[in-house]
Amino acid sequence: MQEFDLIHRYFDWAPTNPEVVLAGGDDAAILAPPPGRQVVIATDMLIAGRHFPESTAPDAIAHKALAVNLSDLAAMGATPLGFTLSLGLPETDEAWLERFSGGLRAAADRWGCNLVGGDTVRSPQLTLSITAFGSVASGTAIRRDGARAGDRLAVTGTVGDAALGLIVALQPDQVPAELPEADRAYLLDRLDRPEPRLATGQALCGQAAGLDISDGLLQDLGHMLDASGLSAEIDLDAIPLSSAARHWLDAQPAAIDQMLGGGDDYELLLALPPGLALDPAWGLTVIGRLDDAGPVGAIRERSGRPLTAQRGYDHFGEEGA
Amino acid sequence: MQEFDLIHRYFDWAPTNPEVVLAGGDDAAILAPPPGRQVVIATDMLIAGRHFPESTAPDAIAHKALAVNLSDLAAMGATPLGFTLSLGLPETDEAWLERFSGGLRAAADRWGCNLVGGDTVRSPQLTLSITAFGSVASGTAIRRDGARAGDRLAVTGTVGDAALGLIVALQPDQVPAELPEADRAYLLDRLDRPEPRLATGQALCGQAAGLDISDGLLQDLGHMLDASGLSAEIDLDAIPLSSAARHWLDAQPAAIDQMLGGGDDYELLLALPPGLALDPAWGLTVIGRLDDAGPVGAIRERSGRPLTAQRGYDHFGEEGA
Repeated sequence: MQEFDLIHRYFDWAPTNPEVVLAGGDDAAILAPPPGRQVVIATDMLIAGRHFPESTAPDAIAHKALAVNLSDLAAMGATPLGFTLSLGLPETDEAWLERFSGGLRAAADRWGCNLVGGDTVRSPQLTLSITAFGSVASGTAIRRDGARAGDRLAVTGTVGDAALGLIVALQPDQVPAELPEADRAYLLDRLDRPEPRLATGQALCGQAAGLDISDGLLQDLGHMLDASGLSAEIDLDAIPLSSAARHWLDAQPAAIDQMLGGGDDYELLLALPPGLALDPAWGLTVIGRLDDAGPVGAIRERSGRPLTAQRGYDHFGEEGA
Repeated sequence: MQEFDLIHRYFDWAPTNPEVVLAGGDDAAILAPPPGRQVVIATDMLIAGRHFPESTAPDAIAHKALAVNLSDLAAMGATPLGFTLSLGLPETDEAWLERFSGGLRAAADRWGCNLVGGDTVRSPQLTLSITAFGSVASGTAIRRDGARAGDRLAVTGTVGDAALGLIVALQPDQVPAELPEADRAYLLDRLDRPEPRLATGQALCGQAAGLDISDGLLQDLGHMLDASGLSAEIDLDAIPLSSAARHWLDAQPAAIDQMLGGGDDYELLLALPPGLALDPAWGLTVIGRLDDAGPVGAIRERSGRPLTAQRGYDHFGEEGA
């Protein structure tokens, strides 16, 4: 199959977003964000066997590749607009492309984010590079350097599921024997199908600081503290956990380290000013408070015990997850 | 070296463009194009050994990876604003990174295009994915579907040098023995260091149709004809050639097929309305005329002989360049 045929067959979708003026078929795409809005841009490259297990279903790969980028947009409070996809393929496997394309389209439609351009090339290893665009009212983006002493620290969803899901996928002999099959499936799904917290990010534009949890709760909290010049106290008992994660911890309490240090949660970690009333629709759990009591970047438990940031996923460190 | 250290050491440059609000250090970048302008987005993935010879110098790889994207922006008439870079590296080679980073910064500074974000990952093969952003006055982008019967067909620069440069790089025994060393070096440089024709594209916004020559003159002309529903007559003798290419053709007349069918020229191919006066600063050569005399997509020599579009570079075809 020629490249043009491949694109036409699997990736040629008419744009549905009125801000997308031209998508595909020319040298470049054209977007027209409305007046008063800035353009927000996130990019991530994913490689099979490194960012997702080789056994991952094609539609889940598509979902995740788009979701991790949209999670970055969510973390800025942006509304998705479109994305480009560069796809390095080891071979032209039509059954794989069919399922990948279907998954990508479902994800794109769900989040209102149009495919506006891309590139397909031969590559020895399956490689995806997505760049996603959104827009935000000028000056209201959620930034990691805008937290203040006294802000509450909050997270969306539950923390640590993806780190446990990775163990299910790659080291099944490390999973507690008594963990029910439904819990394993749930944790795998959390690894494969992260949910970008777009609505919560958009609701908090201009009212919060923060970022998304991609490297692990403690490491990403460290990033916010470093950028904002603060320290933090967190209440480990307040961290929201799924029932699957609770079952795992009942059998293996030490797994909490992996859950707080492991990446791929794609939940939002937000600093909320004291006066802000929390809307239950945002799905937030308060887990601590920011202060300037300790050295910049320091994280303490409520008891005062220092918490060392477990190193999250680092593609260039000696030990990867 | 950890990923954060690598980015900080090699890719952490303060933005110089006032339209770049935030570049690096957060989940996403923020751009603020001025009112009345649309955002133009191009993306390309390049893989070592496939899109450039493995022997290519690191600074030339950086130049080319950015240039091919900016050529797409030039082909839309856009003014560059910024780009993201995702880099898949087989290893952390600091000498390589130093030269790559230097070349990338020189290219970015030269074209006024700021690095606004990116990603670095481990990859079995050196892989670069760049997405470039520019802006254009609303409604004036140069599109390939806007050509009309009666338009003159023109190109910037010279045609076919990169195809010959690829032979110099990969099949040196196919190069005419009498070709001077200076010509070989010139052709290699044209392959490695394409020059995006930004000024010409910008000058022709709202006045022309067209695209850039990445797949080869005949194939890209075919794309414009298909999109605009036209046919074309071209004057082979009018096609602008470098002196190095003329020397090559003197020894090997059949090489004209590779020159018209080979990709990687990154010149602009433009359809210019009859009334438009050509400014010599645009560097254009008229090589033919568009009409509706033949079937859509058909290309004739001035003599009337049909010209078959040599197939240009196709990453999924059986035969790659």
